[in-house]
Amino acid sequence: MVQQMEIICVGNELLIGKTLNTNAHWLAKRATSFGIMVKRITVVSDDFEEIAKIIKEALHRKPRFIITTGGLGPTFDDKTLEGIAKALNRKLEVNEKALKMVREKYEAYAKARRIEQVELTPPRIKMATLPEGAEPIPNPIGTAPGVRIEIEKTILIALPGVPSEMEAIFEESVASLLKREAGKAVFFETSIYADNIMESSLAPLIDKAMHDNPYVYIKSHPKGEEKKPHIEIHFSTTAENSKIAKDRIGKAIIQLSELVQKNGGKIRTLRKSE
Amino acid sequence: MVQQMEIICVGNELLIGKTLNTNAHWLAKRATSFGIMVKRITVVSDDFEEIAKIIKEALHRKPRFIITTGGLGPTFDDKTLEGIAKALNRKLEVNEKALKMVREKYEAYAKARRIEQVELTPPRIKMATLPEGAEPIPNPIGTAPGVRIEIEKTILIALPGVPSEMEAIFEESVASLLKREAGKAVFFETSIYADNIMESSLAPLIDKAMHDNPYVYIKSHPKGEEKKPHIEIHFSTTAENSKIAKDRIGKAIIQLSELVQKNGGKIRTLRKSE
Repeated sequence: MVQQMEIICVGNELLIGKTLNTNAHWLAKRATSFGIMVKRITVVSDDFEEIAKIIKEALHRKPRFIITTGGLGPTFDDKTLEGIAKALNRKLEVNEKALKMVREKYEAYAKARRIEQVELTPPRIKMATLPEGAEPIPNPIGTAPGVRIEIEKTILIALPGVPSEMEAIFEESVASLLKREAGKAVFFETSIYADNIMESSLAPLIDKAMHDNPYVYIKSHPKGEEKKPHIEIHFSTTAENSKIAKDRIGKAIIQLSELVQKNGGKIRTLRKSE
Repeated sequence: MVQQMEIICVGNELLIGKTLNTNAHWLAKRATSFGIMVKRITVVSDDFEEIAKIIKEALHRKPRFIITTGGLGPTFDDKTLEGIAKALNRKLEVNEKALKMVREKYEAYAKARRIEQVELTPPRIKMATLPEGAEPIPNPIGTAPGVRIEIEKTILIALPGVPSEMEAIFEESVASLLKREAGKAVFFETSIYADNIMESSLAPLIDKAMHDNPYVYIKSHPKGEEKKPHIEIHFSTTAENSKIAKDRIGKAIIQLSELVQKNGGKIRTLRKSE
């Protein structure tokens, strides 16, 4: 069974086009590589009502995982945990484990600066204020911990928006969980390139190959122009194990390559520029 | 009144982390720059049931605009129009204006290649098969036309997923519509940079400035480390006209800069590296 995931990215900076959403791309790629299927990515503003609505909608679809990014910091507009608490109808409370993590960060900071101490002000305590029943996840390079909450059959993981912190928490504490949940499932993908055939002529050939290879997803990506066609044909599958995945893709590639050549196209296994 | 928009990006390649979603970023930035408020971005697979569900959900929230990207091409897995038709409970039909656009593309192609003609095969006719009541939008550089449909107070615009085609159709036929709808509304943004103050110390100062300047959105983006803080403070607002926008932002910057300096921070108007 292939486990499903949704990614929810919180941040006005994504909605005004200030920041390119590399977090969603990075997470989707990593999760897919473990054999997890990403079903939906949603970007939403720093508004706790909006966040709550989207979390509820996602939970309703019952994915195994929901990963959120952004909105865990100390400022007023870091609303992710408030939104999650509202969606789950749980209280926010200072989490002792999280508070210890945050306190240690500021103690290290005070020590490095040779100052007496850094006071645990309300914005700092905010980073340790989690929905009831949540578990903090250590942040190896920043201050705000990640957060993990189980809701029936869904594991919700909240990560910070700063890419380096998001990636560090993911690699240290989330990746192994996803791999374990994915079991032996794998994602396998490869591309071939077709020249001398238009995408619209290729379309029925891909349709035939997809029909005959129902578990293989085949997608054409035109790289040249319609008038001088150079088309990437991308094959991918998520399968129970690696042998099945490779066999499936191999069979689909052979069939489609033959069809393309019969129709006057040329197949390459590398991009034109490579 | 500020008009709202949702962006829906269709494509498995976005969900498996193969392709970075630059389309959403580009569209969000352009729409925001015209004074339109982007409320949500959703990425969904090439599955017409999923697409239909997401279009329905978006329509239900009654934004002025929905822009979709991807899934307009000739292949079997280009499902956006099928999904839209299902969401609207409309039939798909060959649209004569769209068919003329597609035919002219292939006539030009045949002429350039000095061949008799390029047959209008079913995959090519598919690109001219639109939901009832839809208007095709010319594609200046590719084959598949864009599509425009009005549903009560929402204008739905479907654009191709190839970035150069998406941008070309947008600039030629969509930008002027958005500008007209935005009226005199403008989006205005600027950043200042704070050194020597931690994000968690800055947080309550931003809270105060946001409280006193309710229409200005202020967000801190840490650029250094917590131990050697260098923080971008981004101010933005969407306002009825440009004078109001600039006055608002100016007032918020002055107040926050004073608060930061009182708390031992330094304000720069440029990034450290600039």
